[in-house]
Amino acid sequence: MSERGFASDNYAGVHPEILQALAEVNTGHEPAYGDDAVTARLGEVVRGHFGDLAQVFCVFNGTGANVVALQSACRPWEAVICARNAHIDADEGGAPERVAGIKLHTVDTPDGKLTAELLDTQAWGFGVVHRAQPRVVSITQSSELGTVYTPDEIRAITTRAHELGLLVHLDGARISNAAASLGVPLRAFTTDAGVDLVSLGGTKNGAMAAEAVVVLEPSIADAVPFVRKTFMQLSSKMRFISAQLIALFENDLWLRSATHANAMAQRLRDGIANLDGVQVTQSVQANAVFAILPAVVTARLQERHHFYVWDHRTGEVRLMCSWDTTEADVDAFASDVATELATELARPNS
Amino acid sequence: MSERGFASDNYAGVHPEILQALAEVNTGHEPAYGDDAVTARLGEVVRGHFGDLAQVFCVFNGTGANVVALQSACRPWEAVICARNAHIDADEGGAPERVAGIKLHTVDTPDGKLTAELLDTQAWGFGVVHRAQPRVVSITQSSELGTVYTPDEIRAITTRAHELGLLVHLDGARISNAAASLGVPLRAFTTDAGVDLVSLGGTKNGAMAAEAVVVLEPSIADAVPFVRKTFMQLSSKMRFISAQLIALFENDLWLRSATHANAMAQRLRDGIANLDGVQVTQSVQANAVFAILPAVVTARLQERHHFYVWDHRTGEVRLMCSWDTTEADVDAFASDVATELATELARPNS
Amino acid sequence: MSERGFASDNYAGVHPEILQALAEVNTGHEPAYGDDAVTARLGEVVRGHFGDLAQVFCVFNGTGANVVALQSACRPWEAVICARNAHIDADEGGAPERVAGIKLHTVDTPDGKLTAELLDTQAWGFGVVHRAQPRVVSITQSSELGTVYTPDEIRAITTRAHELGLLVHLDGARISNAAASLGVPLRAFTTDAGVDLVSLGGTKNGAMAAEAVVVLEPSIADAVPFVRKTFMQLSSKMRFISAQLIALFENDLWLRSATHANAMAQRLRDGIANLDGVQVTQSVQANAVFAILPAVVTARLQERHHFYVWDHRTGEVRLMCSWDTTEADVDAFASDVATELATELARPNS
Amino acid sequence: MSERGFASDNYAGVHPEILQALAEVNTGHEPAYGDDAVTARLGEVVRGHFGDLAQVFCVFNGTGANVVALQSACRPWEAVICARNAHIDADEGGAPERVAGIKLHTVDTPDGKLTAELLDTQAWGFGVVHRAQPRVVSITQSSELGTVYTPDEIRAITTRAHELGLLVHLDGARISNAAASLGVPLRAFTTDAGVDLVSLGGTKNGAMAAEAVVVLEPSIADAVPFVRKTFMQLSSKMRFISAQLIALFENDLWLRSATHANAMAQRLRDGIANLDGVQVTQSVQANAVFAILPAVVTARLQERHHFYVWDHRTGEVRLMCSWDTTEADVDAFASDVATELATELARPNS
Repeated sequence: MSERGFASDNYAGVHPEILQALAEVNTGHEPAYGDDAVTARLGEVVRGHFGDLAQVFCVFNGTGANVVALQSACRPWEAVICARNAHIDADEGGAPERVAGIKLHTVDTPDGKLTAELLDTQAWGFGVVHRAQPRVVSITQSSELGTVYTPDEIRAITTRAHELGLLVHLDGARISNAAASLGVPLRAFTTDAGVDLVSLGGTKNGAMAAEAVVVLEPSIADAVPFVRKTFMQLSSKMRFISAQLIALFENDLWLRSATHANAMAQRLRDGIANLDGVQVTQSVQANAVFAILPAVVTARLQERHHFYVWDHRTGEVRLMCSWDTTEADVDAFASDVATELATELARPNS
Repeated sequence: MSERGFASDNYAGVHPEILQALAEVNTGHEPAYGDDAVTARLGEVVRGHFGDLAQVFCVFNGTGANVVALQSACRPWEAVICARNAHIDADEGGAPERVAGIKLHTVDTPDGKLTAELLDTQAWGFGVVHRAQPRVVSITQSSELGTVYTPDEIRAITTRAHELGLLVHLDGARISNAAASLGVPLRAFTTDAGVDLVSLGGTKNGAMAAEAVVVLEPSIADAVPFVRKTFMQLSSKMRFISAQLIALFENDLWLRSATHANAMAQRLRDGIANLDGVQVTQSVQANAVFAILPAVVTARLQERHHFYVWDHRTGEVRLMCSWDTTEADVDAFASDVATELATELARPNS
Repeated sequence: MSERGFASDNYAGVHPEILQALAEVNTGHEPAYGDDAVTARLGEVVRGHFGDLAQVFCVFNGTGANVVALQSACRPWEAVICARNAHIDADEGGAPERVAGIKLHTVDTPDGKLTAELLDTQAWGFGVVHRAQPRVVSITQSSELGTVYTPDEIRAITTRAHELGLLVHLDGARISNAAASLGVPLRAFTTDAGVDLVSLGGTKNGAMAAEAVVVLEPSIADAVPFVRKTFMQLSSKMRFISAQLIALFENDLWLRSATHANAMAQRLRDGIANLDGVQVTQSVQANAVFAILPAVVTARLQERHHFYVWDHRTGEVRLMCSWDTTEADVDAFASDVATELATELARPNS
Repeated sequence: MSERGFASDNYAGVHPEILQALAEVNTGHEPAYGDDAVTARLGEVVRGHFGDLAQVFCVFNGTGANVVALQSACRPWEAVICARNAHIDADEGGAPERVAGIKLHTVDTPDGKLTAELLDTQAWGFGVVHRAQPRVVSITQSSELGTVYTPDEIRAITTRAHELGLLVHLDGARISNAAASLGVPLRAFTTDAGVDLVSLGGTKNGAMAAEAVVVLEPSIADAVPFVRKTFMQLSSKMRFISAQLIALFENDLWLRSATHANAMAQRLRDGIANLDGVQVTQSVQANAVFAILPAVVTARLQERHHFYVWDHRTGEVRLMCSWDTTEADVDAFASDVATELATELARPNS
């Protein structure tokens, strides 16, 4: 196996600056459960990015951030509209349904992105008790398919949602990759685009375990501390989560790391897109490349490189780049793809 | 404020050896979600303590460990018997009820400890649909009141529980303090005493955020990975939790730290127990001291030292020692108690 | 077995006037789910009893009424204060916890009744995320032990609850028996005493299956229709529940039946209270008699009469009278008690 | 408004034979909660239809039957595969998700019916904790679109499901209409076709409020009584539900009523299918007719007849026939359709 594969940005370790930050806050006693000075400083950092009304609540992981955010906005009969195969739909073990009791009204999308028109297909039945009542629209930035919403696209969604009395949640597990891709500040497609709630991701961008709920619509904020505790996402020694997020977002580490990961994905796409037998299936806008390869080629590559098949039916694979992916990693992989494809195409019956 | 108070073992930071362990495992990519080599090694470490059948599942925090453990053992209509004011009853924001849907049948205890006789007061109604069916007995070692079960006391509970078809869960958020107090291995009052499920605590004993569910009764183990994921307690970069627990439990750090914290609690009790106006209310067997002080004395002390009032009605306070509490911390606090009591007793109308 | 025992007011059938009412509303089509003329008329009937602001929502059973009412008033981290062994605590299979996710903070009581002082023992920790936040006080009228709150006693509870920002729910599964006992209108100890939410019982007083949530505090009402549906308590052919409640409450059937059941309980107490070997344990204020009998006498009586042992430890039994209990039923039972006690006392070693 | 419209089979009242049955079992006391002689007799009746292993558990309504059945088969991380817009997906206010915590993996279908191939599109990810684990396939007979599965079609689904280790639940809210349509006994497409769990419907076929869970796979049965109680679906005076189901299923009332309703739907389709401007959209196999009408015609018809628009986008309406729909009702409605269409088509700009 190669040292660093393309399986997930979760396979990467912790950025040295973040590890250093943990050591720096490890000085004596601090009040537990978020009443510490480090967490207070994180509040300032987050307000710097998302505006003066933003409130930040650290949690342990992305599923925790999403479920705490959605539960804080929904009453027991309310539902969330999202893309089918959004992380909350496909990858959280049914946590939104089991833990928060929230029904997801899912919408098929070609590229992982909702639109105002698509959300309308599920935004109906208001006041009718038979239908779980739509309350939140959840979008993912960057999406599960590596695509990125522009600020205008998000504004169109929040405008329509707010017209309908719905809130908008942005699952930002890879929010930094999106901002790096767009070349805009985080607030350009959140606060300034009308988003109400953000799951702010750190782990996939070089943190150890650091996510947060950022509340932009103040009326929701009162619920979050209670939901976070009851939903088992309240860290006792919270300063160590806050320190990770500060290390990422106080200066430009978030942007440096995400820009690098995105660049590696571009390099990877460039390295394989024109090969005979490869079909890149989604626009590469963040740190993911989706491509269809011959199954036999995929199998051979997986003997040396970690990566996942996304769709066994079509042979589509997902290739994720991370903050520590190197040009050499990419080039070696692309080269192996080329070699395996050539071998395969040279076989008599292929 | 003094640098280190007696508010909680959660106020302490991270032991340097644990911080070092985080750095050591931060080398390149590792499979996410527990399929990594570090987590595999933790399995060996845990089997070394709890026996060959033990299975370990890392989670983020103690509430997570307890709720994942209990849910893995309970069907939707089943209930847990525990001491009233156990952590699951009093300090988890209703997570067992809200997240797992589990009713707690609580029992009043004088010292935070259940007995076979006390559990019998709630272990009834089997087969009667009107009563949430008892399925698990949950005990806390050391207890919320700083007391410690002997292995024989736990054996008496597990024997009775098993006769009734019940499982026994041990909330070991402070399991190291209990073992240090008893001078026995961890398995003496868990595996060897018939316990089925353990919440293994690391955070309160010098870790950053590291807890685990340890399954001793194999029939439960299949459920845990799924419950852990759905209940939002699955860490993507799990090696960094595993590394903390390895650092604690591979050698004797767990025991050194807990022994020290316990000794500081003894020193604290010795320093204040005989003062006029102080009544130590619970036997000091682990790292907590419970004592009744005059309210005015408590108020004055809280201007300089962090600690909590446990019972406003009686004036009982809780004083927790941690791995980094120093003799000087204890002596300074005890001296302040003495001074404030003397001042108070000298007042004309006191 | 005697035809009518004293096991439960649920063992009784349906009052003929209620059966007649079902036939009368069975005329052609009516809109489903409560949009029918019969249900509209029930609204008027309920407003006649509980005042112009009262809103009524039919449900299927008492557990449904309680859980829908409590969920409509609680957010996901909120809790309910109630007497230990209230129906919601002891007899609903953990439905409040499992279905609504609500923690119950229970209070021991001597007679099944809360007081302002008793509720204070659990009404604390407001704003502290570690404690499931008290939101509702639930009382039962008449109580599980056959006792009845006076309007003043309820007023004292609602006053204290409202001071604390808590709502008050009254579980009125046997509300008619309480009103009959007190000789006051239903509103005297509900609307006029500051109660916010009522579970209005019909089934135990001669209906087939007819209960309702009555909302007196209008701010809660918006939630109820949605919670009722999602919690599986919305009847499609609702007119047939409404008709039962109209038959009970439009005229005086509710009062006639409850007065009769209460009178039978008094007659039963009078018949056995002075027998050697009988100890009546609770004041007989509604339709239940609680008494301690020798176990051997209980066993013999149960060969001929249905009734339940309430507490196997003490030998306390519960004897319930219903709308169709006759004087002859009571006298036959009391006579059998006397005979069995005499036989038992005459035994050489008794 | 006409007396009987085509809005829902729930708008109809109670069949006189069922009302009579209620009166007949209203004789004195019977043990509550299902321990009565009437419910015992229902067991025999159900075994007569579904075979000797069938176990029946009465509940209040269809949502209750479905959620109790599914919860009894699923652990906390398990999921149900069903057609998108199945009743459990579209019409139960999110009860499966909120109350049972069950994620629905939905599949688009052209006619409301799953197939083995369609279920395969969601039956994957077994053993992968990130995906809510498929455990049950739920099908609806007759479907929400008025179509009916043949026994062979169901057998194909159960065969595939069982190969995958999945159970099959049949939502039989309109099971009688399906059997009448197919001309086969109930067991032909349930017990004999490999179905494991049935929601047996009575209410839509002339009962007042009578549904049941019928367990055909015995390993599930132990859970049902507890789930039914905890999920608030246990009737105290159960004999009155059992009596309704006996009245329906002991003799041929179920079949007479369903056959009639189906015939009325055929007559309705015949009366409108060939009209200019009407497009019947689904095969009429049970008691529902789906058809597209011009919106203006629909609006005019709704001034005189109760019925619902199914899809506002296309103008599709749903017309339900019930046990008491008359030929005159059908003919009057069809005639009004013809008249309104003619009027509309005669308008200059139409």
